[in-house]
Amino acid sequence: MKASGGTDEAKRRAAESAAQQVESGMVVGLGTGSTAAHAIRALGEAVASGTEIQGVPTSYQARALAREAGIPLVTLDDARPDIAIDGADQLQPDGTVIKGGGAAHTREKIVDTSAERCLIVADDTKSTDVLDHPVPVELLSDAVPTVERSIRALDGEPTLRTARRKDGPVVTDNGNLVLDCAFGAIEAPDALAGSLSAIPGVVEHGIFTDVADEIHVGSNDGVSIHSA
Amino acid sequence: MKASGGTDEAKRRAAESAAQQVESGMVVGLGTGSTAAHAIRALGEAVASGTEIQGVPTSYQARALAREAGIPLVTLDDARPDIAIDGADQLQPDGTVIKGGGAAHTREKIVDTSAERCLIVADDTKSTDVLDHPVPVELLSDAVPTVERSIRALDGEPTLRTARRKDGPVVTDNGNLVLDCAFGAIEAPDALAGSLSAIPGVVEHGIFTDVADEIHVGSNDGVSIHSA
Repeated sequence: MKASGGTDEAKRRAAESAAQQVESGMVVGLGTGSTAAHAIRALGEAVASGTEIQGVPTSYQARALAREAGIPLVTLDDARPDIAIDGADQLQPDGTVIKGGGAAHTREKIVDTSAERCLIVADDTKSTDVLDHPVPVELLSDAVPTVERSIRALDGEPTLRTARRKDGPVVTDNGNLVLDCAFGAIEAPDALAGSLSAIPGVVEHGIFTDVADEIHVGSNDGVSIHSA
Repeated sequence: MKASGGTDEAKRRAAESAAQQVESGMVVGLGTGSTAAHAIRALGEAVASGTEIQGVPTSYQARALAREAGIPLVTLDDARPDIAIDGADQLQPDGTVIKGGGAAHTREKIVDTSAERCLIVADDTKSTDVLDHPVPVELLSDAVPTVERSIRALDGEPTLRTARRKDGPVVTDNGNLVLDCAFGAIEAPDALAGSLSAIPGVVEHGIFTDVADEIHVGSNDGVSIHSA
């Protein structure tokens, strides 16, 4: 679970606001990270109160939390999510988001884009006018030197993410590595997303364009909701 | 090694023509498949005659063949290839190529694009005016249902590649699966390449645009060489 600047209260408010849109009978994509975790717990309480939902987890962590919360789980082979609730490392007003601090962005993108609707939940420290968070890029371990070269050709500065409580690099749930790529202010996220996707050896990058349908931003005082 | 319609003689001519461009001191990307295998053997003979090269293999198979042929091996961490010699499942006159019959196209694309020059070697049954070979798409196993849906939205018909001498699907050297995606005649391979790269869960597709620098096409009579 990624540490972040926002308060736990702000995260909880955003997550619970989104979770209220989940209705009985729905299949729900379950995001990864500290804010999405609040949504999973809120959905667990709904299940305990009789709401019948099924969850599609986006990571090992989300699966474990959902099991703990008592949410029945299915896979994308079984069902297509009606709704997904997921966090963000940074988001701008048009709903474009950077994800991947938890190294789960590949499966998050698979689940979020397959859902009928995607709700992004975040505390108010994550909002910005122009995205400038380093972009996490999951890649095959063989391809580190060539992808680093391609990132630099796009004026980015790549850093291989190193692990804590494990020697060497972070390894994703898919068995791959992560480069955190600093581009400064990202004026054209759509174009950068296309360029990153085209680099041989890149599995998935953390820029989510045209994925979010609604943004729930929590603060210590309340929640603001807007369509993306 | 992928079976194909061309004669072994035509493949050998193409491969040996390309191998003649390798000079002492070069780092050489070593392709995968029955035609590239001829190039590896020709390079092994050159090494035996005193040519000093180092090889960067594109697969488990290429690595094993190169070891057998006596070619010293290095990785992309050590050196950038001066030249790569690789096969193709189908190619059109502008040098756009479809690869992946051997399920090695991801690492082939990483090595081929990192090389200073890339020579494609093929027998004359592989040439066509308009590409229409099914496009191999390597993808995360979790993402099969969602990627299949995205392929159909692009008017493609995906088929999960099943293994021989193993139950279930083919698993790539990277631990992923392969969908063979039939699109009929591909009028705009550049656009399709971009669309395939952008699908969440896709690791790499088999369309190679702007990768080949030179094409060596062998027949039973000789070889035709042209720039791409």
